[in-house]
Amino acid sequence: MAKNITPKEENFSQWYQDVIRAAELADNAPVRGCMVIRPNGYGVWELIQASFDKAFKETGHVNAYFPLLIPSSFMEREAQHVEGFSPELAVVTTAGGSELEEPYVIRPTSETVIGHMYSQWVQSWRDLPILINQWCNVVRWEKRPRLFLRTSEFLWQEGHTAHATREEAIAETFQMLDVYRRIMRDELALPVIHGEKSMNERFPGAENTYSCEAMMSDKRALQAGTSHFLGQNFARAFEISFQNKDGAMEFAWTTSWGVSTRLIGALIMTHADNDGLVLPPNVAPVKVVIIPLSNDENKLKSHLEPMARTISGRIDAAVGVPCSKVDKQYHLRPGDRFFYHLQRGVPLRVEFGDKEFSEHCATIVRRDTASKERVSLDALAGRVRELLYEIQDDMYRKALNFRKSNTQDISNFDELKEFFSDSGPGGFARTYFGGSGDDEKAIKDATGGVTIRCIPIEDDTSGKCVYTGKDGAKRVIFAKAY
Amino acid sequence: MAKNITPKEENFSQWYQDVIRAAELADNAPVRGCMVIRPNGYGVWELIQASFDKAFKETGHVNAYFPLLIPSSFMEREAQHVEGFSPELAVVTTAGGSELEEPYVIRPTSETVIGHMYSQWVQSWRDLPILINQWCNVVRWEKRPRLFLRTSEFLWQEGHTAHATREEAIAETFQMLDVYRRIMRDELALPVIHGEKSMNERFPGAENTYSCEAMMSDKRALQAGTSHFLGQNFARAFEISFQNKDGAMEFAWTTSWGVSTRLIGALIMTHADNDGLVLPPNVAPVKVVIIPLSNDENKLKSHLEPMARTISGRIDAAVGVPCSKVDKQYHLRPGDRFFYHLQRGVPLRVEFGDKEFSEHCATIVRRDTASKERVSLDALAGRVRELLYEIQDDMYRKALNFRKSNTQDISNFDELKEFFSDSGPGGFARTYFGGSGDDEKAIKDATGGVTIRCIPIEDDTSGKCVYTGKDGAKRVIFAKAY
Repeated sequence: MAKNITPKEENFSQWYQDVIRAAELADNAPVRGCMVIRPNGYGVWELIQASFDKAFKETGHVNAYFPLLIPSSFMEREAQHVEGFSPELAVVTTAGGSELEEPYVIRPTSETVIGHMYSQWVQSWRDLPILINQWCNVVRWEKRPRLFLRTSEFLWQEGHTAHATREEAIAETFQMLDVYRRIMRDELALPVIHGEKSMNERFPGAENTYSCEAMMSDKRALQAGTSHFLGQNFARAFEISFQNKDGAMEFAWTTSWGVSTRLIGALIMTHADNDGLVLPPNVAPVKVVIIPLSNDENKLKSHLEPMARTISGRIDAAVGVPCSKVDKQYHLRPGDRFFYHLQRGVPLRVEFGDKEFSEHCATIVRRDTASKERVSLDALAGRVRELLYEIQDDMYRKALNFRKSNTQDISNFDELKEFFSDSGPGGFARTYFGGSGDDEKAIKDATGGVTIRCIPIEDDTSGKCVYTGKDGAKRVIFAKAY
Repeated sequence: MAKNITPKEENFSQWYQDVIRAAELADNAPVRGCMVIRPNGYGVWELIQASFDKAFKETGHVNAYFPLLIPSSFMEREAQHVEGFSPELAVVTTAGGSELEEPYVIRPTSETVIGHMYSQWVQSWRDLPILINQWCNVVRWEKRPRLFLRTSEFLWQEGHTAHATREEAIAETFQMLDVYRRIMRDELALPVIHGEKSMNERFPGAENTYSCEAMMSDKRALQAGTSHFLGQNFARAFEISFQNKDGAMEFAWTTSWGVSTRLIGALIMTHADNDGLVLPPNVAPVKVVIIPLSNDENKLKSHLEPMARTISGRIDAAVGVPCSKVDKQYHLRPGDRFFYHLQRGVPLRVEFGDKEFSEHCATIVRRDTASKERVSLDALAGRVRELLYEIQDDMYRKALNFRKSNTQDISNFDELKEFFSDSGPGGFARTYFGGSGDDEKAIKDATGGVTIRCIPIEDDTSGKCVYTGKDGAKRVIFAKAY
């Protein structure tokens, strides 16, 4: 048991912070609410980025870069947008030694400035669709910051597309939601429920918002990614208009969609345990650590370490990417060396001691299950490759089972309140809802913060509303959320 | 001749802007001095980033992310640093609806906030070296902005390392300078002179600054990358201290080094011509465009276009990365289709018309030389691969020859003034300098802005100072600079 990590059953929030600190993923910055993403955390982000970026490009998107600063008048052009973001803005009032005539806000998201540019780039239907993504930092001032989950500055990607028809824009919104769901499942081992957000949870300025919702190991929901159908709202506000094939002028239809460094928080709260981080192999910068062990320092340097390097090379070749590392922290005790990598979530540890050396084998230890096996050196690289696939699958399945066993069908409001009460089990409550935004709010107030997470796309049954009792209500998932 | 591009001989600055606009590389942002990097420009930046990032990782560096905002008191801890950057700072005074107690500046560079973090991460010699790089945006308010060259916000990488000894930090400074020189040569086809900056041109807070200096096609110099030996200046200001092997406390020795989106400006001003952009193949997102041509629309769709896709697949396989594209702008005239890709700098155009189709061949046209050759389809992919290498080499050699033929040895101050006068040839003046910072300034004033670009590393001869006449002066390059 890790002494430097509070057990999650004791204090989940402290456990979360302890895991981050022990794995050296991030630190608090000297600016309140901001974070420093340390190399171990940034390495995970680079793999997450690469997975999404590949999928964006495969679906025809290109990257671009828009400015950090936005004239504050731009924010005001879309009424709901400014209302939603105003409380969170950071404002630049002085630049280059003089006060600015019009203050600039640091982008909290870029619909406005991108809308302005699109209005200049789009004249004819031939200029559409525009399929652009941007990787960047954004600032939304946080009153209750938490590393990765809610920070005043975070890193993300924001896709912004413009289309000639409503249907095409809606298809794009769903396509990107599905890209998110797929990458989260296949690369991050995160099972998510993807669906439409309720009215109260929509992006400010969107006609419709869709999200991927994941269950954390404290049974709360985390919104892991969102895809917005913006209708013609921003096109109207920024005059993105085009001449259609018949020669008439029309406003474009736009979408936006984003995932952020929050996904690292999702990885931690889904997979980590009381010993620290557990990374799915596909987003682990170091997937395998090889640990040469001997009390005989000469032998260590002359025999074990060179062989460990050979093993490392073979593993990298078998897996197809550089992903293994030889641990040379000989000044530490073996247990401390094991623990060092275990806390960092390295999926596989290969122990290679005197006995293993003489018997031409090694011991492989899985991070996720702690199971051990001895494998001959000749079979090692192949077995490591297999195990990485197995771990990736097992971690997904484990998270999926956890969600399933903490999801309950609820048929009336008393049951719902009971489910989320201090003595209730909590988790995802699957039920029906057909009420108003005020009804949503009343439920939230009566349950200590429970909200509709989404209307699942893959479950389009209808039934009796949990709150109003009316028939024909939509299937929804209620949960407490981050 | 391109009608939408001003000839560079007529107005270099207008030519530069026209090339950027015609290639759709970047636009002015609605915030003064800031730019939007459009997909064509960002695609180049992604390839530049990938080249440098790979080299950084091969030399043992890892990426991380530090906050955008820096408490303004941090800037003041290093006297020269605050003096150098104060005039260019953008300041956040309000955030989350309230005025900040201490204003934050948007990072113009991150030595201060990174120094603060390193002081927390470093305790013992075992914690050193720290070899971290960051890819991010920075803001330095520009009075005379120019796309890519001087923008109030730009993208860059900043490496920040901390070492136990002076020697190690100096070795790192030179190593990264050499990495820069090598990538600029091999990937960007930019010949650079790398050397030490004179006192007046040092980074604020550095003990020594080194740079890579490239000659643009108007014979002016562009500082394409810098590597700074910071001594213990920032370690002292931010208390980055460690216990050495003997148990004594010491300050660390730090370095920093950076290249930015300015490199795209360097590519344009080195390689582009009066028809528009010319990209070295290694940083061209689209390296080959295949243009099916026929007046028979049925044949175009049923025969030429499918064969063009096959050719494209073969080229991608031969080159080893997806790098070719089939042009389907059938609503444009052939000449306009050629020009479209020519202005975007695509290194090779493959024309594939009716005649070529029936003769099972195609015509390859080089962007850099306009030379044409007919090649059988069976040999095409291999020939394209060869030509891409050839173009890359030829572009480098051409730029190197241009620099050599515009570099002159100068032996006295009158010659220097003459060289840079309106009737003089201009370019790089190679001479000796042993004077003071005031002497440098006097030369600058007397020559309309000529400065010492660097003291070349590979030319360590000494001689008579061009200004003071004293012996034992160092070899230097004088030029007008961007």
